[in-house]
This record gives sequence, C-alpha cells and structure tokens, in this order.
Amino acid sequence: MQRTPTESANKMTHPQTAFQGTHTTFSTGFLAKKRSAVFKNTLPYQLHVLRERGYFEAYDHKWEFDPERWPIGDAQYHLFWESDIAKWIEAACYSLYERKNEELVRGIAELVDMLRANQHEDGYLNLHYTLMEPGKRFTNLRDMHELYNAGHLIEAAIAHKEYFRNSDLMKPILKYVDLLCATFGPAEGQIRGYPGHPEIELALCRLFELTNNPKHLALARFFLTERGNPAGVDGKHYYDWEAEQRGERLFERPTYFPTRRAYSYQQAHKPLLEQHTIEGHAVRAMYLLAGLADVGQTSGNDDEIGPYCDVLTRLWKNMVEKKMYLTGGIGSVDQWEGFGIDYSLPQSSDEGGCYAETCASVGVILLAERMLHIAQSGKYSDVMELCLYNTVLGGMSCDGLQFTYTNQLASSDGALSERKKWFNCACCPMNVARLLGSLGGFIWHAYVHSPYEVSIYIHLYESASLFYSVGLMRVVQLEQESNWPWEGKVKFNCKITGKVSVDIYLRTPSWATGWTVTPMLPTIVTDRGYLKLPAKWLAKHSEFCLHVPMQPRLVSPHPFTNQNVVAIARGPLVYCVEDCDNPWVDDHFKSLIFDEAACLTETRKVDEVTKEEYVGITARGQFRFVETEEGHLPGQEMAEVVVEEEEEEEEERPATKARTTPESPVKELHFVPFYFRANRPGKGHMRVGLRKA
Amino acid sequence: MQRTPTESANKMTHPQTAFQGTHTTFSTGFLAKKRSAVFKNTLPYQLHVLRERGYFEAYDHKWEFDPERWPIGDAQYHLFWESDIAKWIEAACYSLYERKNEELVRGIAELVDMLRANQHEDGYLNLHYTLMEPGKRFTNLRDMHELYNAGHLIEAAIAHKEYFRNSDLMKPILKYVDLLCATFGPAEGQIRGYPGHPEIELALCRLFELTNNPKHLALARFFLTERGNPAGVDGKHYYDWEAEQRGERLFERPTYFPTRRAYSYQQAHKPLLEQHTIEGHAVRAMYLLAGLADVGQTSGNDDEIGPYCDVLTRLWKNMVEKKMYLTGGIGSVDQWEGFGIDYSLPQSSDEGGCYAETCASVGVILLAERMLHIAQSGKYSDVMELCLYNTVLGGMSCDGLQFTYTNQLASSDGALSERKKWFNCACCPMNVARLLGSLGGFIWHAYVHSPYEVSIYIHLYESASLFYSVGLMRVVQLEQESNWPWEGKVKFNCKITGKVSVDIYLRTPSWATGWTVTPMLPTIVTDRGYLKLPAKWLAKHSEFCLHVPMQPRLVSPHPFTNQNVVAIARGPLVYCVEDCDNPWVDDHFKSLIFDEAACLTETRKVDEVTKEEYVGITARGQFRFVETEEGHLPGQEMAEVVVEEEEEEEEERPATKARTTPESPVKELHFVPFYFRANRPGKGHMRVGLRKA
Repeated sequence: MQRTPTESANKMTHPQTAFQGTHTTFSTGFLAKKRSAVFKNTLPYQLHVLRERGYFEAYDHKWEFDPERWPIGDAQYHLFWESDIAKWIEAACYSLYERKNEELVRGIAELVDMLRANQHEDGYLNLHYTLMEPGKRFTNLRDMHELYNAGHLIEAAIAHKEYFRNSDLMKPILKYVDLLCATFGPAEGQIRGYPGHPEIELALCRLFELTNNPKHLALARFFLTERGNPAGVDGKHYYDWEAEQRGERLFERPTYFPTRRAYSYQQAHKPLLEQHTIEGHAVRAMYLLAGLADVGQTSGNDDEIGPYCDVLTRLWKNMVEKKMYLTGGIGSVDQWEGFGIDYSLPQSSDEGGCYAETCASVGVILLAERMLHIAQSGKYSDVMELCLYNTVLGGMSCDGLQFTYTNQLASSDGALSERKKWFNCACCPMNVARLLGSLGGFIWHAYVHSPYEVSIYIHLYESASLFYSVGLMRVVQLEQESNWPWEGKVKFNCKITGKVSVDIYLRTPSWATGWTVTPMLPTIVTDRGYLKLPAKWLAKHSEFCLHVPMQPRLVSPHPFTNQNVVAIARGPLVYCVEDCDNPWVDDHFKSLIFDEAACLTETRKVDEVTKEEYVGITARGQFRFVETEEGHLPGQEMAEVVVEEEEEEEEERPATKARTTPESPVKELHFVPFYFRANRPGKGHMRVGLRKA
Repeated sequence: MQRTPTESANKMTHPQTAFQGTHTTFSTGFLAKKRSAVFKNTLPYQLHVLRERGYFEAYDHKWEFDPERWPIGDAQYHLFWESDIAKWIEAACYSLYERKNEELVRGIAELVDMLRANQHEDGYLNLHYTLMEPGKRFTNLRDMHELYNAGHLIEAAIAHKEYFRNSDLMKPILKYVDLLCATFGPAEGQIRGYPGHPEIELALCRLFELTNNPKHLALARFFLTERGNPAGVDGKHYYDWEAEQRGERLFERPTYFPTRRAYSYQQAHKPLLEQHTIEGHAVRAMYLLAGLADVGQTSGNDDEIGPYCDVLTRLWKNMVEKKMYLTGGIGSVDQWEGFGIDYSLPQSSDEGGCYAETCASVGVILLAERMLHIAQSGKYSDVMELCLYNTVLGGMSCDGLQFTYTNQLASSDGALSERKKWFNCACCPMNVARLLGSLGGFIWHAYVHSPYEVSIYIHLYESASLFYSVGLMRVVQLEQESNWPWEGKVKFNCKITGKVSVDIYLRTPSWATGWTVTPMLPTIVTDRGYLKLPAKWLAKHSEFCLHVPMQPRLVSPHPFTNQNVVAIARGPLVYCVEDCDNPWVDDHFKSLIFDEAACLTETRKVDEVTKEEYVGITARGQFRFVETEEGHLPGQEMAEVVVEEEEEEEEERPATKARTTPESPVKELHFVPFYFRANRPGKGHMRVGLRKA
C-alpha cells in the first residue's frame, strides 16, 4: 500500500517511506546515474558476495569455521550477518520501485525464507547466538550486536512489506520485536540494558509509524533514556553490571576501548541528555541521535521534544564545527572508528589518523534529514549535500563494484588511496546502496498541512520529479531538471491543479557566492538558507529557474585544526590531486606547497576508463616543495627552498615531467572530484588539502 | 675510593663516576645555583616525602592500604618504591661531595638499613612481592618493576660505595645480583625473560665497571639480546608465554597498551637490532638504548659495537629529527607516556597530546652522554644542552620544592601550566636530583690516553673546574667561568704541569650564528661541532676565551609536524609566554598570531618572588587573533580578521590591558625562559610556539 503524504509537519515521515509518498523518481541526472550503478551492478554483486562468503551455508547450519575461505579472525564478524542481509534486502526493495529485477526478487525471497527458518520458537533471531554461543543471548549487549541486527531486520521488514505488500518478513520480525519488548525494560524481571551499537531505536520508531503499537515507541524510548545511567542495575552502570555477570576481569577490555570502561565509545558514558560533545564511534553516534530525534518527533510530546532538540542541536554543532572534515567525513581515530578531541582532524594515517567511515557519513545524512524536520535550515541540508557528494558517493567506485570503508583526505605509504572488493566488516557497501535507493526521501520534503495546503522544501538539486495526489488526482506535480553538481542551473516545472496552495522553499547553498531566480521575484524572502517561492507567485509561474554560480573556490579547515592547508572545492564537491593526473608525485603530495595565487581553470572531461563525466580543475602557478632534507635539530628554522626566478620560456613545463629535485617548481596541478578518486589505475597517491606557503 | 681517569677512550667511564675522577666542582654559575637548590632544598624535602608517604612504615611491614593517606589507587604505585628510595640515595650521595649534610647521611643510613632488613634469605629484595603478592616473584616481568627497581638499587649501591667507601649497601645488592644472575639467562632452568622497564642493563654495566665480574656484563647482554625475541620460550614471545602462565585472558591488557600485545610499549615488539624507529614508552626507550651503548662500549667487542652503534645512530636520528619537541621533550602520547608517529608533535593536550616527561629528557641526556663516547659530535651535545636547559631544569621549580611530570609546550583548560608538590608515580623529582648531582660527569669528558696524553671535550659551558692528577700532582687543571646561558662569554684557565700533552675541544653550538676565540687561533680546526685547541697552542695560552653571540632567534618545528608556529629561543633556552606577564590572555594564547616582523628586545630581570635572575624578551609588533567565531561549516574559508590601521598614537597600549575583542591587536608580548614557567602565581596559561600569520 503506497501512502499519500498526509502527515502533519509535526508527525515524522521517514525518508525511506516518504519517497514512496511523494512518488519521487529520478531521470537522467548525476545522482540518477549513481543510483543506476547501484541497481544494475552493486545489488546483484552484493548478493553474489553473500553467497560466496558463506552466509547461505551458515543459515543452513552447514557453516564451519574455515579461515581460508572466511578469514573472519578474532572479531567474529558473523556478529553482524543479520545486518548485512537486512540492509541488502532493504536496498534491493528500494531498487525495485525503479528497476524490476527478478534475480533480486528471488534473492530477497530466499533470504527471507532463510531468516524465517532460523527463528527460534519464542521469536529470537540471531545467527551468532544460535550457532556459536547458544544459550548466551543478551549477555553482552555492550559488545555483541543482537539489538543492532534486530534494528536492521526491522527496517528490512518495513521495506519488504512496503514493496511486496505482504508480511512474509514483517510477521516473524514482529514476533521478534514482541520478544524484545517483553525482555527489555524497567519492569521487574526485565533487562535494564540497551544496545552497544544503537540502530534499533530509529528502527522501532519507523516500525511505530507503521504499526502505531505504543510498545514499539516505548521500547525505543527506554533504550534512549536508560542509556548511560550510572546506576542502572544494582547501583551500577549496566555495562559494568553485565561485565561482572559474565565474569569479566578488571583488565579485560575490547580492542576498541582505549581505556577501561571507555563507554563513550558507545555514547553511554553519561545519560544522553547530559552529553555536551559528540564522542566515540561515529556511526553509533549518528544512529543514536537519529533515534533520539525520531522518538521526540514521533511522540510529538513537547516534554521530550524540547530537551531532545537541545541535545541534538548542541551535539550537531560540536560535530560540524569541530569534528568534521572538509569532505563531510567524521571520525579521525582508527581505534574506535570515531571522534577525536575538538579540532583534531589530521588528513591521513601518517599524520595522526583520518577514519571518516562511509557509514558514518551515511549516518550524518540520516541525522541531517531528521534535523531538517526539527528546523528547516540550510545548515543541515548543506551538510547533507556535503556528505552525499563527497564521502558517501566517494565510498563506491563509478561502476558500483568496489568500495572504501574509510575516506582519508590524504594517502600515505601505509594507507594508499584505493578501493576494495569487500570488507570483513561489510557495513559500508550495503549502507551506500540503501541510502541511494531511498534518496528520493532526502532530496526534498513535502509537508502536507491539509489536503489543500502543501509546503515543499527542496534540499538537493537533481533531475527528478514528485507528485502529490488527492484521491486519484495529481494536484501537485513538481519537476526539477539539472546537471548539478557540474552546472548550477536548475529548471523547475510545478503544475498545480485545483485549489491546492503550494509554497516552495529552495535551498540557497552556503558555499554559493550568489544566486538568481528567473522570472524575477518581486520580493526576496529568505529564511535560514531557504528562498521562499510563495503560492501566489507559483500560481503565475509554473516554470522557473534557479541559477547558482559554480566555480572553483579555495577552502581551508579551521585554524585550530593545525591543518595549514588549502583545498579546492566547486559547488558541493571537494577536489583532490591524484598521482594518475600528476605522475611526478612520490610522497603523496605531502611536501607540495600550494600557490594561492595560482590560476584555476576548469575543463569538462570524460574519463576513458570509467566513462565518468566530470569537471576537472587545473591550477597553474609556482608549486614548490617543503625542504625535507634530513639532519635538522628540533629547534632549527626550516627555511623554504628559495626558488630562483627562471627565465621566461614560452613552452610550459609539462605537468607529467618527473619531479627530480624540489628546487624545480611544478607549474600545473590537476584536480579531480574527491568522490572520483581511486577509480583509475595509479600508485594510490592522493591529497585533498595542500600545504599553504 | 676516588679514581683518576685512566680509562682509554674506548673503555666507558660513566658520568656518575667520571665527575669524581675529574674532581669536577661547580662555583657560581647558573647550573651551580640549580644544583644548590637540589642539595639544600630538594633532597631534604624528598626525604621528608618518603616518610610522609609511608615508605618507612611499609618497609617496617606496618604498612596498610589507606587510600586517604596514600591514595595509590589501582596502579599499585608501591611497585616502584625501591626505585624511589634508590634514586634518592644515589642523588644524596652525589650531593655530599659538594655539601655535607648530616640529615641526608642519617637518611641514607636509615634507608640502607631498611633495605637490608627486607632482603630475603636468598638475596631477593622487592617490597611489592614481599608484602602484596608473596610467592609471585618474577611472574610478570612485562608489567611489574622488579628488575627496574633492581637496576636503581645497583646504581644506588655504586654511589653509596663510592662516597662512603663501605659495602653496607653494595654487599646486599651484590647478593641480589647473584640471585638475578642465577635466575635469568638462556640456560636450562633459567628464566628467558627481560624487564618490561629497562634500567638494569645500564646499571649492570656500571656495576661491571666496578666489579669486573663477567656475570654482570653477561646478564646485561642477555637482557638486551633476548629482548623482542618472537620465539623466546616454547616458540613464543616471552611476554606471551608469561601471560599464558599467569592465566591472562585474550582481552586482558594493561591500561597503557593501546592494543593487545602492544610490546612496542616496552621496545620488545622485535629484537633491538631489527628496530628502525623509536617507539613506545619514552623513558624505557632511553634507558634501554643507554644500556645498549654501555654493553657495546664496556665489552669493547667490535662484533657488538658495530651493530649496536647502527641501532643507536638510527634510533637517535629518528627521535631527534622526527619525534622531539623544540624544547628537547620527547613523547607526545599520554596513554603510553611515549612516542607517537613521526612528526606527530602537538603542543598541548587539547591539540592531541604532549607528554614530554621530565624523566624522558633525563634519559635523553644519559643517552646523549653515551653517544658522545661513540662519536664526539655536537649533534649529541646540542641535544644534551637543549634537554638540560629546557625540559629537565623546567621539571623543577626555582626553589627545588615543586615539580612537573609532563612538560607540555602549551597549556589548556584541562591541563594548566602548573607545578605539583609530588606525584603518585614519583620518578621525575628524584631523577632531576640525581642528574644534577652527577652533572660534573656530563659537562665535559676527559679522555686520558696515557698519563701524559689527555683530550678534554667541553660539552656544556658553566663556571666549573676539573683537575687531573698523576699521583698527588695536579698535572692538568682546567677552569671555565661563564654566565651561561645569559651571556655567551666563557673564560678558560688551563694549567698544565709537567709533560702532559692536552688537547681541548670546545663545543660550538649549532644554534650559534658564529663564535670567536681569543687570543686568535692561527688556524681553525673544527670537527663535527667542536673546535680543537691543540696542545701546542694551549701550552702558550693558559688563558683564553670563547665568545658566542647570545641573541633571540625565531625557531619553528618541521613543517610535517603541522605545527604552523614560531617560537623564540635564545642560546640554549626556548622561551614561552605566560599569563602573569601577559594577563589579557584568556585562551592559553591559542588564537594569538605572532607577528614575525615584531621587534625583539631583551631585558635582564630579577623576579621578585623567586629571586630568579634571567633574561626576559619582549616582542613589539601587531599581534592579532584568529577569528574564533562559531557557526562555520567545515569547508568555509576562515578569514583572518582584517585589522584597520590605527592612528598613530604616542602612548603605547599597555600590555596588561584586557583583550576585549580580537579586533584590537596586542602590541607587546613578554617571554620568559620555558624552564622558568609556572614559578609565579597566575592562571596557568602558557605557550611556546605561537601561530604564524
């Protein structure tokens, strides 16, 4: 059953469902091509990987530990297997709206059968505790991933039910959720625990949106409010109590805990309402906060909404202003895949770390979409765009068959810029697929205040269309057509039928030096990064156009990051240099000094290998190198190399000439979009931020 | 028994013994005053602390755990108690050469009795395993400190025997060493282990110097060569095997291990000869390498010396060029009190860490002194001077009664610039005391090639004298007189009696812009940072003078550190700004931008509170501030504040005026030597490196 968008502005509609409500379709734009790669290549490939890596055998209980075939090592990666399967089912369901594919339909059916066959009598459903540690379910909420998996299973069930309109997956999952609702909570005999890896909170809110069963919202709320309680059970933090029950010793701690009881890893170091900085594992933090936003917005209870919004706003602010990379990446620390201290944002492993996990940026987008419901402000959609166009799209190769897990801003000998076919912990590839599959719910929000009053916020520009119906009549039909992010012109066509009053709000990106709308508006009303096109004006102008100048600009991180670098950006895209365009490089561009007086020119390109169309940028100037001569004591002044003025020569030094000595300045640097990196053969040298003089 | 320096250049004389051999005395210079503070104030105070903190009760077995009186917490700080006592005895013995003190003599006697009374029948001597974990001796070499303590006991015994000329301490310690020699080694039934915290290696070499007992050198060599063996016992790394024997679990690991089996903490991740970068706990690394140098030099065996020198040279190079702060501090990582990756040298905790433990710089000096025996090169003595004048002297207050443990280059709200009366882990205060006590062995080296042929290398300048006798006749008497580091003039008087041929080598500091010697030398012969004054010239010029210009200069760390800062140095001293001279500061000088065109002037000062005489530096210019306004997205250009040219005004803005807005540039900055920081009342705001424009 597809639904029309009749929710009030207060009531939450999740983007994974909203794109169906708005009947959003993509046509021929940049994002459409990325979605197409996912639908055509990624999803069949991922199904193939699930088979190859033994998931099917495992659920048939024919699985045996075979390190050669499944090199899972210490960390027991089958912990997450339900989540991999669930995210794939979810992504595959989204893809079917746009592109029918019998192979995917069969794969979904097979996986659903497999999950059903593995459900216990009482509804429990988790492979690890069925196969590897039977009898130990729910004894290690801190480290194991039962509730995280359950969350993804819920989301898969929703996607499955919404597309197939049957309950083949929803029914067993509801039974599992019943078990969870009975097991966890504050009552006598219930477990007063909460997941080490949040996800189920937002999933339960999405489920509640469908079921209206108050138990579902209540369980999400319990997980959120109990989290970080210093005296949850017997006067102890739940994770302390739980560890004691397991007989864990004083100096036992998980690999990712830098110190004992480092519960900030799970955002459980203190109650959520008392947290003032964003800490720990970045993906967990994003999912958790998305869940917090959901509980507040779903309940519509002001007593919840107020304090939750305070937490969300201050943690978002801390993250975006002090803990986010130029690319939208978050998390600089490898050990806990998460946030470092304020302003600690090195570009690469050899400079102190740069994690910027793909999933974490997917999480930022999930959270930004929630924040936009709390306050329609460009500060959220700007970040959503930043993450999508750089870290998330950069997490997948152009053909959709290779992936990155971390998205460092510079390579090093120990961490080349490269893509992998798969990962032991395979969260990211599926996450990109399901985000792109549901992207129609993110690019715009339609608030239907009444059947005759609609506001549409347009967050991202792309060739796409939506419509909104009353009964069988399409009363609003909106199309945008654009070659974004390469060109800044967006053509709109808005057809309104009948008595509907429609206001449209166009995002005016904070990176833009200006913008114009044609035909001219009589008065300009902007609010927090959105330009209002009032119903009256729209009634007269069904066709209009937004023009945003797209030209290269120089950007720098905050000086407190101690990253004395400059990067090139153009529109939402951040750029980087790669060795395949600048083959003289031998040190990952680490000693290169950017000439801020360089002349930047852009060129439309079509890459021969990937067929990717993009705008390349060339910088022409005098690019010198830091002197890296050895033998200096710590306190000596490191002089930059003095460059003798060369005689004027007509013929420019070709950029491909080998750099033999740092004394010869390079005269041309070639930049490509960061998302496009590591798509062509090369040595794996790459850098976003180049040293300032 | 005081000895004359008759060793060959190859045979090692340790500085703690050498200062007696050269009869070095200090008169009225800067270092003499620091020594005086230690002898008059620090040592009696430290004896008092030992009493107050329950050491005496503990050795009387009247000790009970009392967290209020002895808040030692989890980490069982009594682990190190022998080392605290031993280092105090050692320092006290050195002090008695210069300044008789009955209180110290009584304290030494009492402690020696106490140690003797606690020795086991078989020679074993360790309080922790006597009192807290009886029966478990030598079961955790990795984490506990038995052998480290034993090393310090050996050094105390040597100092005690050399000063008191009795064996009250040496005898029981030799018995303990016999037990260790029997217990550890490669033979059947021996433990194939080595200390988690090196120290005993260099102590055993020093003992061998005295005893000539080959067992002592052999045990030191065994500890060094077995270290890091990946298959030491039953095909396993010794620490793995040992952990298994203790029943340690897979996820049990010490607090300071960032990851499992992080044996680089103890420099045991691979055999020493295979190590190419300096890693782990900084103090351990320094003691270990000093021990390695000692075994090579003491044995005089070329097969050892060659490979050991290769290791020492490359690890020293890695440390000094890539892992040392402007101040000579080493170790940026708090968790393991040690080295980070190459060029990771943040100035403060809030920028990613700065540990720079006082003991680690003491260790650098111990190692530098060894390196100078391997190759007389200014690159070692320059670093020795850097560490001494900044990090080591900075580790103690002017009155010798307060201390620092870490020596961060910038304060932050969470880690103010301040001194403490004591530390739970109290290694640093005693270490500064014993280093200053034996400083006469570091400032110069006398190589006596034969009774009639002597070379004297002068590494550090100070008012001090040495003499060298044959029989009862003083054949060489050398005095230097200087107000170093405040003035660069050093007057020498060298009296040579009889037929002795003496060459003197004067260090010409690498930071100096030049130097002159008067009377003029006919020809200048310099070699690796030393100026040779040949015997023939000296025979004619018993009085001569070295002039080194002392003026402020700007220094910067290597660009790869991403520390885009500039600091002021003058001679060997690095300077810092403190809030007590610049009281407008409210952010630890973090947002201040140094004006590299500023005019620097120096002023002789006498501080009212501490009576410290020093040269202060004032910089006059336009010092602006980074815009720290909030609300920026990651990719926005952070523009510096544009400063409107103010109208010329005769009256300068007083430097004490409160900074109300960053728009008003500060016009004067007052700098004091880094060692002098945190000696006066203030808010604890301090910084060495100031942001470049």
